[in-house]
Amino acid sequence: MPFSQRRAHSRLLPADPETRAVAADLYERVAGLPIISPHGHVPPRLLVDDSPFANAAELFVTHDHYVTRLLHAGGVALKTMGVGDPSADPREAWRALATNWHLFAGTASGYWLSEELSSFFGVEGELDADNADEIFDLIASRLDEPEFRPRALFRSFNLEVLATTDDPLSDLGAHRALRDADLGGRVIPTFRPDAYLDPEHASFAERVTALLGATGESSTFSGYLAALQRRREYFITHGAVSTDHGVLEPLTVDLDATTAETLFQAALAGTIGAEPARTFRAHMLFQMARMSVDDGLVMTVHAGVLRNHSTATFARFGPDAGHDIPVATTFTHGMRPLLERFGLEPNLHLVLFTVDESAFSRELAPLAGFYPSVYVGAPWWFLDAPDSIARFREATIETAGFYKSSGFIDDTRAFLSIPARHDTARRVDAGVLARLVREERISLSRAEQIADDLVGAIPRKVFKL
Amino acid sequence: MPFSQRRAHSRLLPADPETRAVAADLYERVAGLPIISPHGHVPPRLLVDDSPFANAAELFVTHDHYVTRLLHAGGVALKTMGVGDPSADPREAWRALATNWHLFAGTASGYWLSEELSSFFGVEGELDADNADEIFDLIASRLDEPEFRPRALFRSFNLEVLATTDDPLSDLGAHRALRDADLGGRVIPTFRPDAYLDPEHASFAERVTALLGATGESSTFSGYLAALQRRREYFITHGAVSTDHGVLEPLTVDLDATTAETLFQAALAGTIGAEPARTFRAHMLFQMARMSVDDGLVMTVHAGVLRNHSTATFARFGPDAGHDIPVATTFTHGMRPLLERFGLEPNLHLVLFTVDESAFSRELAPLAGFYPSVYVGAPWWFLDAPDSIARFREATIETAGFYKSSGFIDDTRAFLSIPARHDTARRVDAGVLARLVREERISLSRAEQIADDLVGAIPRKVFKL
Amino acid sequence: MPFSQRRAHSRLLPADPETRAVAADLYERVAGLPIISPHGHVPPRLLVDDSPFANAAELFVTHDHYVTRLLHAGGVALKTMGVGDPSADPREAWRALATNWHLFAGTASGYWLSEELSSFFGVEGELDADNADEIFDLIASRLDEPEFRPRALFRSFNLEVLATTDDPLSDLGAHRALRDADLGGRVIPTFRPDAYLDPEHASFAERVTALLGATGESSTFSGYLAALQRRREYFITHGAVSTDHGVLEPLTVDLDATTAETLFQAALAGTIGAEPARTFRAHMLFQMARMSVDDGLVMTVHAGVLRNHSTATFARFGPDAGHDIPVATTFTHGMRPLLERFGLEPNLHLVLFTVDESAFSRELAPLAGFYPSVYVGAPWWFLDAPDSIARFREATIETAGFYKSSGFIDDTRAFLSIPARHDTARRVDAGVLARLVREERISLSRAEQIADDLVGAIPRKVFKL
Repeated sequence: MPFSQRRAHSRLLPADPETRAVAADLYERVAGLPIISPHGHVPPRLLVDDSPFANAAELFVTHDHYVTRLLHAGGVALKTMGVGDPSADPREAWRALATNWHLFAGTASGYWLSEELSSFFGVEGELDADNADEIFDLIASRLDEPEFRPRALFRSFNLEVLATTDDPLSDLGAHRALRDADLGGRVIPTFRPDAYLDPEHASFAERVTALLGATGESSTFSGYLAALQRRREYFITHGAVSTDHGVLEPLTVDLDATTAETLFQAALAGTIGAEPARTFRAHMLFQMARMSVDDGLVMTVHAGVLRNHSTATFARFGPDAGHDIPVATTFTHGMRPLLERFGLEPNLHLVLFTVDESAFSRELAPLAGFYPSVYVGAPWWFLDAPDSIARFREATIETAGFYKSSGFIDDTRAFLSIPARHDTARRVDAGVLARLVREERISLSRAEQIADDLVGAIPRKVFKL
Repeated sequence: MPFSQRRAHSRLLPADPETRAVAADLYERVAGLPIISPHGHVPPRLLVDDSPFANAAELFVTHDHYVTRLLHAGGVALKTMGVGDPSADPREAWRALATNWHLFAGTASGYWLSEELSSFFGVEGELDADNADEIFDLIASRLDEPEFRPRALFRSFNLEVLATTDDPLSDLGAHRALRDADLGGRVIPTFRPDAYLDPEHASFAERVTALLGATGESSTFSGYLAALQRRREYFITHGAVSTDHGVLEPLTVDLDATTAETLFQAALAGTIGAEPARTFRAHMLFQMARMSVDDGLVMTVHAGVLRNHSTATFARFGPDAGHDIPVATTFTHGMRPLLERFGLEPNLHLVLFTVDESAFSRELAPLAGFYPSVYVGAPWWFLDAPDSIARFREATIETAGFYKSSGFIDDTRAFLSIPARHDTARRVDAGVLARLVREERISLSRAEQIADDLVGAIPRKVFKL
Repeated sequence: MPFSQRRAHSRLLPADPETRAVAADLYERVAGLPIISPHGHVPPRLLVDDSPFANAAELFVTHDHYVTRLLHAGGVALKTMGVGDPSADPREAWRALATNWHLFAGTASGYWLSEELSSFFGVEGELDADNADEIFDLIASRLDEPEFRPRALFRSFNLEVLATTDDPLSDLGAHRALRDADLGGRVIPTFRPDAYLDPEHASFAERVTALLGATGESSTFSGYLAALQRRREYFITHGAVSTDHGVLEPLTVDLDATTAETLFQAALAGTIGAEPARTFRAHMLFQMARMSVDDGLVMTVHAGVLRNHSTATFARFGPDAGHDIPVATTFTHGMRPLLERFGLEPNLHLVLFTVDESAFSRELAPLAGFYPSVYVGAPWWFLDAPDSIARFREATIETAGFYKSSGFIDDTRAFLSIPARHDTARRVDAGVLARLVREERISLSRAEQIADDLVGAIPRKVFKL
């Protein structure tokens, strides 16, 4: 339990000694509690295969686009880091990280990397050009040990639930294979149909055709809806509790059946224009809420990120290469059609995530502070960092309290970073709660209850776990 | 004076001991000063009738949409709380609050409720299912006492001025009745003509017709303007110092007389389209500024809230049921026509309120930092809470200082919450000032003067009291 | 070295004693380091002429639109302060400041003025009506002393580089005259072509005609581009390292040559419409990036300010009279065409400034966290104040670290305020770093390195100094 050894420290806790003492007690309560990870991007194959990690670069650099983007911003070529280039020398990728370690000072990634290097490999202090090779070798020597294989790590993380993110046509074989694995926790899939709902996605027609083929549904809008419903059911039988929707704008619209059919056929034929495509996407988000009311899957919406900002980089390195950039995002008007129709349904749980912080106090807290179905998503992506998490709490609790927030999600592809990320959130929340106690805004016993609930009862309720 | 007994506490003051000590001294100066409440929604009938409050639910739950919205968000039916249902059992409404007390932890409402329960009823600690009935009964037993009747409470609050919000056609009889009441302070009306200025308001034509009838003005645009002016004069003779405007977008436009006449006739006839209606509203906001230059009424604009987001809830429970949701709001372009024409007029006081925090440093502080007529409205509605008030100060003082802000407004329908709300603002402002002193950005004597002025000279000047 | 005497103080450092101690040590390292000022508005003539300042009003009031705007907001006429009226009595202008000193409490200007009065003139405490004349006379008596002449002040400021902002057709004679002056640092020009790139600027056609005439280029779009390139080269030979672009919206677009030619001719002829003019501006920002790739000039974009909000004030007092007001500003979509084409060019340095704080975490940090060419501009204009600087760091470092920020720029016309402004940034950054150290997010040695780099290596690298 490498993480548990470090719990006594005062990292990330408030500077004022009395507030820090309260925060430390609150943190101590929850530091060792199981991790619930209801949204993330760890490939389930990692746990099925249970192969050792290859080297420090594979573990910490190449596959973590938080890390590669900042090295790229500092002038390192993506191929040097092994992005899109399996022939790259991992030692060089690691050296790129070590020699540019200063770029990460103050970033969330820098903090997590330090935590992981310390917890898992006993590496304290900073990386630099001089120690890069030595640490690379040290890590290599440990990765062969049984305790560093993915399943052993999973057990040591004390993961109660780990949700993956999956294609609607996935056979979920990996999840079946893991059902009886001795992990100490569940690995569950998440239904993520973006590419099947967006007529402007490059492979929309191809995917929808495959979807209809796989489910035996007809090539009509109602067949399409039925096919999606079937795959949702399939996911449910494999343990899924939620669907996830990554959208540029959180827009919803109710269409009559005829219009929807017309748009669907144009989308399939590849003749749909930009504005009708936008309407179609908005209607499909609406339809997803309808299906959630029916089948009970929690609906999470991650809104406001423009994917693949640099076309040249996308062409060469594909998606998730670090240049997805947020845009100004509003929810009040766009989500209204959905909420008008389904917002009061007891069976709907709708978790709204933003990377535009201005929406927290302006829209998400007020929406979650009225609609029983709406929860404010935890600070996500660029915002799941210490100061950002504190700002999120401060921007939302005065309107919506703690109990209409989602609980922390790590959203990560970097398996080894899961404990550090959850630990960060627990520490920051302890600090926020401690301040409220010290300012006599809540009692200590209430703060203790909330600290517990934030990592237990709340995510379990929101995600129906 | 129940509140004055609790002043020594360190609630809401900064954690750092030295800063807290400065803040405590600053707070102590102002804790007992009279309350000026230049904008709020207490029904004046409450004070005319001076009837005892019926029970704890009526006092704390049913009529406070801050409270009902959050209980609703937590799954309690609005009718259980007595909203729109006078037959609801108040004890059940109270139990709903008590058993969901955890939802309010960290919220402004939770803090105020605790303050009120403690100050007025000696109830310390937290509500829960076990003590709900006992506390309900305890409150019931006190509400019959003379000191809990509205006028006695008014006196104990040390209210210098309480402004209500009134329909332009109100005869202001309640205010006349209160003119000579022994309250220790004034109750003054506020001219709130929204429904008379918005062609898309359901009863626009009906109201304007009544307005023209009541004033004997002709059914022309100039008759309409004259009628509004007459009612403003009527309000002035009854002590009004301001007009209030709740608008979705703070848009203004100057129209020529012919265009205005055309739009007005279409509005009256119910044939106006959405875009012309928007233009008409924008022109009427412009006209209100013109009238303020003439008659001296302070103009307050509360912008950026989409009312009645859930149509089903509105249909069943009417307005103010807790689902008014903010939208992204900008002022720089929209207020420009008004400010181009009237912004330099010495007689105009224009107080701009936002629930989009991003506008504070971006637009409101710069506007108030140039135009003599413009004041930054205090943090309002979702933002009149401890952390939000501090953020407001931090976002505005570096550009506009303290003296171009409006002073605190409580904006409340919940009569009993007035002292707690003003006390919160006084404590938070004391903390902000103390930090500036400790950081040697202002002197202690300057901070003392500002603390005094924020609750006295500033609101008196801004609202021409 | 008046400023160095005051370094021991704890001004602007965090309240918590242990954090303050760390911050004080970090500040002490950098307090005396040379000032790099890569963007500002000091007129170079000031240093060529080296004439004594006339009086306290000229020095502190009349020419500082931060000061005049807030006095104006408080009801003082601009002409009283000497704005646009050389016949105004400077003593009256000074008295206006002194008697309205309370307006400045908590503002950045108030803090800087206090610093300057104390450092340069030994004036402690606050200005008021009683001491106004005495202090005016005291300052007058000092201004004749040699150490208060501009060049002597320049030397005492320990300025390594001072960049001015210059018209593309300037002959830069002042810069030539200063090349061999004994200043202890360089004065370099900055290419600021706004009026030559905006068809809606009142003198666009006249200026472009002069530009073409001066360079002998033809009256075609390619001649226009060549003319701009030549003037950039001229600036480079006079030491310029950057171009500066003040735009309402940070919009870029790539046009084909024919379209650009058509728009250019319409612009020259004064027949261009509003939307084509917008497109033309956007294309010229794109062209400026192309030229920067070619000639290596750093490109700074100051976006999102609506100039001259009050037409009446502009008509009477001209530009820079204190009523430039920010608007909501987004970068992700608007800068994309430029970044698609040039964002990965190693020779491009693009520094993006905003006065809309919501863009820091949402767009600027993510853009700078991926594109090697992009740097987050320091908090600017309304935001170069203590709390705002701290918020900027907290909003950007978790995504982009410290090394993708620009280093502080003072952007000032108020020569005497340069040290106070840089000192403020150094103090606030020391506080931010100290907190990260105390929260164990970075090591002390790393914080020391960053503190040094923020005032040295970082601005030197970003601005290619």
